[in-house]
Amino acid sequence: MVLEAVINSATNEEIITTNLKQFLLVLSVSLGVATLPQVFSWFRQIPYTLLLVIVGLGLAVVDVRLVTLSPELILFIFLPPLLFEAAWNLKWSGLKQDFLPICLYAVLGVVIAIAGVAIGLNQLAGLSLTTALLIGASLSATDPVSVTAVFRELGVGSRLITLMEGESLFNDGMAVVAFSFLVALSLGTVELEFQPILVQLFTVTGIGVGVGGLIGFGISYLTQRFDLPLVEQSLTLVSAYSTYLIIEDLGGSGVIGVVTTGLILGNFGSRIGMNPRTRIIVSEFWDFLAFFVNSIVFLLIGDQIRFASLGENLQIIAVTIGAMIVMRAVAILILSNLSASITKSEISLPDQTILWWGGLRGSVSIALALSVPIGLPEREKIIATVFGVVLFTLLVQGLTIKPLLQKLELMGDAPLREQYLELAARNVALKRVLQYLQIDQRPGIDPEFYRYQETLIKGEIEDLQIKIDKLQNEYPNLQSFSTEQFRGELLAIEADTYAEFVRAGRLNKELAPMLQDVLQNRDELI
Amino acid sequence: MVLEAVINSATNEEIITTNLKQFLLVLSVSLGVATLPQVFSWFRQIPYTLLLVIVGLGLAVVDVRLVTLSPELILFIFLPPLLFEAAWNLKWSGLKQDFLPICLYAVLGVVIAIAGVAIGLNQLAGLSLTTALLIGASLSATDPVSVTAVFRELGVGSRLITLMEGESLFNDGMAVVAFSFLVALSLGTVELEFQPILVQLFTVTGIGVGVGGLIGFGISYLTQRFDLPLVEQSLTLVSAYSTYLIIEDLGGSGVIGVVTTGLILGNFGSRIGMNPRTRIIVSEFWDFLAFFVNSIVFLLIGDQIRFASLGENLQIIAVTIGAMIVMRAVAILILSNLSASITKSEISLPDQTILWWGGLRGSVSIALALSVPIGLPEREKIIATVFGVVLFTLLVQGLTIKPLLQKLELMGDAPLREQYLELAARNVALKRVLQYLQIDQRPGIDPEFYRYQETLIKGEIEDLQIKIDKLQNEYPNLQSFSTEQFRGELLAIEADTYAEFVRAGRLNKELAPMLQDVLQNRDELI
Repeated sequence: MVLEAVINSATNEEIITTNLKQFLLVLSVSLGVATLPQVFSWFRQIPYTLLLVIVGLGLAVVDVRLVTLSPELILFIFLPPLLFEAAWNLKWSGLKQDFLPICLYAVLGVVIAIAGVAIGLNQLAGLSLTTALLIGASLSATDPVSVTAVFRELGVGSRLITLMEGESLFNDGMAVVAFSFLVALSLGTVELEFQPILVQLFTVTGIGVGVGGLIGFGISYLTQRFDLPLVEQSLTLVSAYSTYLIIEDLGGSGVIGVVTTGLILGNFGSRIGMNPRTRIIVSEFWDFLAFFVNSIVFLLIGDQIRFASLGENLQIIAVTIGAMIVMRAVAILILSNLSASITKSEISLPDQTILWWGGLRGSVSIALALSVPIGLPEREKIIATVFGVVLFTLLVQGLTIKPLLQKLELMGDAPLREQYLELAARNVALKRVLQYLQIDQRPGIDPEFYRYQETLIKGEIEDLQIKIDKLQNEYPNLQSFSTEQFRGELLAIEADTYAEFVRAGRLNKELAPMLQDVLQNRDELI
Repeated sequence: MVLEAVINSATNEEIITTNLKQFLLVLSVSLGVATLPQVFSWFRQIPYTLLLVIVGLGLAVVDVRLVTLSPELILFIFLPPLLFEAAWNLKWSGLKQDFLPICLYAVLGVVIAIAGVAIGLNQLAGLSLTTALLIGASLSATDPVSVTAVFRELGVGSRLITLMEGESLFNDGMAVVAFSFLVALSLGTVELEFQPILVQLFTVTGIGVGVGGLIGFGISYLTQRFDLPLVEQSLTLVSAYSTYLIIEDLGGSGVIGVVTTGLILGNFGSRIGMNPRTRIIVSEFWDFLAFFVNSIVFLLIGDQIRFASLGENLQIIAVTIGAMIVMRAVAILILSNLSASITKSEISLPDQTILWWGGLRGSVSIALALSVPIGLPEREKIIATVFGVVLFTLLVQGLTIKPLLQKLELMGDAPLREQYLELAARNVALKRVLQYLQIDQRPGIDPEFYRYQETLIKGEIEDLQIKIDKLQNEYPNLQSFSTEQFRGELLAIEADTYAEFVRAGRLNKELAPMLQDVLQNRDELI
């Protein structure tokens, strides 16, 4: 009310506040979903992003539509930070080792996927080739968010994560390029000739990589010249969006550009240009931003579903799912073996199985489907099919990837480590109790009680010791793990002490710079 | 080009990309300004925000207009996070001690400022009372961003910072309420009667404090029930904006509401509901957000200036500046002495001088001036005057506050103490690490590792001791300072132990009275 009188241009105010309210509503629902597993522990089995999709679906069932996802919103606002964050966190060293299979999956894999799905739809469901190709192109990019979250939780080996994320980062670019070309083809603005396609592909990719690299290295060297954490943090945000916009304006692939910039800044720029503390803060910031954007995107994907049109296109959806799954199996099998025969570094069959079944589809597919020009026939069919398939991959494949990993015994030693850590924690706790018991002899308590308690606890500690020794004998590499752990704890104590001093007002300083040494140490350790 | 073919609704895309580009441009210019002092060390004498204003002015001179600042943009998008961040960082303990003078400055100070400037303009410049009052109200809120940045850099006492920030946080709310009332009055929608004004003031403030408190405490208790750092971080962002929007919708003061929520979450919620690491990350995030928003706001303030209309209204601007400065001197002097006579806690004359001269005006003034209804006569005159005055306070007062502080010898030995405290904190931290190392001998870790770590840390402690001794020899009065510090620590241990016993249910007593003695001691000490 106070401001109602103040503001004269009511429409301007309305636009801003309506957008803001919608945005806050979507975010609040997402955060509510994030706290569900805390309230009902049953939900803990479901990855956060999938839970969002399910809740979004629930809202769609009762016809509560939060916001309409437009392709521009996904492509210009949501996608750049998501791509940047994934690229920033991708380790170049891992990527380099598996560069060949990743490129094969991302380039030939996309071609195989498009061709397979298109032929399947054309032959089995009787769709026109144009429609079939557009559906295939929309669905050719994989989205690893939910899958890699499960991977990390279960402690799956880092190579599988790199393959998964690397593929999905690079095939996004390919999918967008292929899709735009197919749209132009169906609108009659380009011709289907092999050479021009290849030239265009190289141009678009080249501009993306070139300009992305220029911006990435430019900012890397720029930040090396000063030490202004907040500016450097802002620069990463500015670079993610401007790389995308500039490259799109120049006629290149913004997706490929952002990935290039992110890879360079995360692996090179953050090391030469940022102090360790800044690097950590910037990483935390991007974690947050990715969480934020994913929360919105996955909720809205669920919330956008029109059940009626899904029902109408059920047969097409089923055919697409079948073709997609078969073609991905074929692609992964062929390309993995091709890669192995060149690099002599095999990708095991269980790994291939996970790469196949973990190829979920997500926001890029949705954005591409939604951006099919309104003029094209069967646009609604394309959108419904893509939504249906994305939903299937998220819910069916997404929820079965964990059991599959368990079945294939790919979980790594994460549960073992956990067990070990629990024993170690209990060990420390009991030792502290013992110490307290021995120091704080309190008047008025029977000394017999002390002796009894002491014997009890000492017995427990011995039992624990036996268990720990047994575990260490069985799995020798726990030793180096526990040494690492312990060093981490020492650093944590140091950091906590500084935090305590700052909190208590006994140190009138920004906490962060003090942590620098500590974190630098920790970095070297990791 | 790739996406141009993809996207069908060109207008939608244009809106999004144009906005995004403008935003990125503004941000890039700001970041460029932030790096200026790194290139030309001369610029280091000027606070970052003032440098932005100057560069903005420079752009305005060559008629490069980046974006038009609308009042909605300032009030709904920029103001909530700025207020939240300031309130989040304001220490309740300091605020409580100086609650009376802060309230006096914020409430009576605003009334005196409006009345003084209005009478001055009406009598000396011949403006209509309506116009004069609106100018007075727009300029009644102080903006401490640039000033407190200088304070922190120079190590000015924390009381002065608290007074400054506390006043400016609370007078924003008062200024907005007063301004809206005056607008309604000049539009003829309310009548000038004393009782209704007071009732309205209490309603508007009450809703703000009430709903803000509800949201603040609600989120505090909510976050206590789970430990999800990213969710808690998002919740602070959601709470800042939704508190503002909800309260405005309910007819209260959103400004006062956000300040209330921020104070509660920063002083209470972040302590009971967040683990220390989350608290640090959230603080860093808000630091970043405030930097981000301030970068945009101050650059745009400079960039909005229309020199022609400033020139036309030079006389009015001069009268306003004169009246404002005189009235602030009167208000600070009277209210400080009034407060001192009630609380027996004096505010020294040098402190008063700084409070007077440091009362810069900023974004709130601009937002209010811009939101004068288009229907009102002399709207352009109001806007030009307010811009002129804001510019004067930022440039003239802002750039002379540092020499003034030096002249008044208010800078203290803060840097020295800080250095000393840092060494002391590190000393304690390392000793704790050593202790941990010696007690928690863990199975499975090579004893050689222990010995090596121990030698390393002992060496570091010795080095530190030498540095501390040297510092103490050079500055003998650090000794008494450190004795004080140490007494504070002993009291803190005592208090913490009581708190721990009460928390663990081992002491069935209210914590507060037990701590009273301890804290009273500590208070006397500080």
